[in-house]
Amino acid sequence: MKSSSGIPKATVERLPRYLRCLEALSPLRATISSTDLAKLSNMNAAKVRKDLSHLGTYGVRGVGYDAELLRFQIKRELGLTREWDVIIIGVGNLGSALANYGGFVNRGFSIVGLYDADMTKVGMRMDGRIIRHISALESDAGRDGISIGVITTPAEVAQDVATLLVDCGVRSILNFAPAELDVPDTVHVRQVDLATELQILSFYMSGGTPEAIDA
Amino acid sequence: MKSSSGIPKATVERLPRYLRCLEALSPLRATISSTDLAKLSNMNAAKVRKDLSHLGTYGVRGVGYDAELLRFQIKRELGLTREWDVIIIGVGNLGSALANYGGFVNRGFSIVGLYDADMTKVGMRMDGRIIRHISALESDAGRDGISIGVITTPAEVAQDVATLLVDCGVRSILNFAPAELDVPDTVHVRQVDLATELQILSFYMSGGTPEAIDA
Repeated sequence: MKSSSGIPKATVERLPRYLRCLEALSPLRATISSTDLAKLSNMNAAKVRKDLSHLGTYGVRGVGYDAELLRFQIKRELGLTREWDVIIIGVGNLGSALANYGGFVNRGFSIVGLYDADMTKVGMRMDGRIIRHISALESDAGRDGISIGVITTPAEVAQDVATLLVDCGVRSILNFAPAELDVPDTVHVRQVDLATELQILSFYMSGGTPEAIDA
Repeated sequence: MKSSSGIPKATVERLPRYLRCLEALSPLRATISSTDLAKLSNMNAAKVRKDLSHLGTYGVRGVGYDAELLRFQIKRELGLTREWDVIIIGVGNLGSALANYGGFVNRGFSIVGLYDADMTKVGMRMDGRIIRHISALESDAGRDGISIGVITTPAEVAQDVATLLVDCGVRSILNFAPAELDVPDTVHVRQVDLATELQILSFYMSGGTPEAIDA
C-alpha cells in the first residue's frame, strides 16, 4: 500500500538514510551512482533505484544522479524544505542531549521550547533557551503553535504528557519514553526504542552475516 | 539476499519491533494473532506472518501464536538469550542517558564500563559504575572482553574512538556521533541518527498519510 503521496511506507523510512549519506558527500561531488549510494547506505542498488523512482527521479546511465537535485527532492518529499517547531518535554539527560544535538539544526527542525515538571530545572537556561514549567505548555502552544512534541520523560508520566500535548493541538509526537502511548488516530506517534539497534547488532554477533543486500 | 541464518536483513530489523510489542503484552495473554501483532507493531498481518515464518514458527489458525514461545524464539534469533557486555565512550548527556536507560537491563545488555577523556568526569560514579579514563580502555578490554562499544562522543573524536575500539578487539559499534566511521569490514557498525524519526514525522505532517500497511 502507498501513502497518499504514492510513496510506500518502507521507502519513506529509508529516505532519511539516503539523505544522510548525500549530506555527508563532498560538496564538490556533482553526481552519485545508485551503486555508490547503495554502498554508503548499506542497501542494494536496485532497491535504491526503485526507492528513488518514487520521487520521480531517475539517474542517468553511466553518470548517476545529480547529487544536489537528489538532496532537494528527498528533502521536499520529507517536508524538510520548511522548518518545523519542536518542543522537548522532560529535560533530563536524554532531553538535554536532544536539545543540544547538532543534527537537528539546518535539517528542518527548530527546538522552540523545553519543558519540565521539576521546579529546580525551571528557569535554567540551556543552549539559549529557558526551561519552562510544563503548566505553561498550554498557553505557549496556543500562542506559538507547535509541530512536534518530543517526550523524554520517565515512562510513568509519558501518557499524561502525551494527553496534554494532544489537548494542546500537537499532532505529531516522538516518544523516547519506554511506554506505549494511547492517542487519537489523528495523531502521529513514532516510538524510539534505544535498545533496537543493540538488538540488531546482537543478531550479527550471534552468527548472522551482515549483508549489503536488503531483502 | 539472506543472512547466514537464512533471515532477510529487513526481517532482522523488524524483529526488535515485534519483540517490544510482545514484551508490552499482559503476561496473562497466552496467544496473539498475526492481526493483533500487526496492529501493535504498525505492520500488515501478511508481512508479520512472513517475517515470523523465517523463525520456523507458524501461528495456529483461529488461535494465533503462543506469545511466550514467540518471545523466546525472537530473542534466540536475535542472540538475546545470552548477555552482551556493553561499554559507553563519552559520558555527556547522551552517554549518561544511555547509562541510565532502563531499557537495556533484562533485555540482553549489561553496561560494564563508562569511559571519558574529561578528567573532571573520570572517577565519578554513575549508577554504581565509576567513569574511567579512555586510556584505561585497552587494558580493561584485554582483561574483560567487550561485546559492543557505544560511541556518544562529539563527532570530531568519533573516528579516533572507533579506531581505538577496533584495536582493542571490539567487533560491534553503535555510533550516536553524527560522523561516518571508517572501520574494517569485519566490524559491524550501526549508525544512529536521532533526526531520522523526526524526518519521518515530517513526511506525514507534509501530507503523507500514515498507513497501517507496510509496503
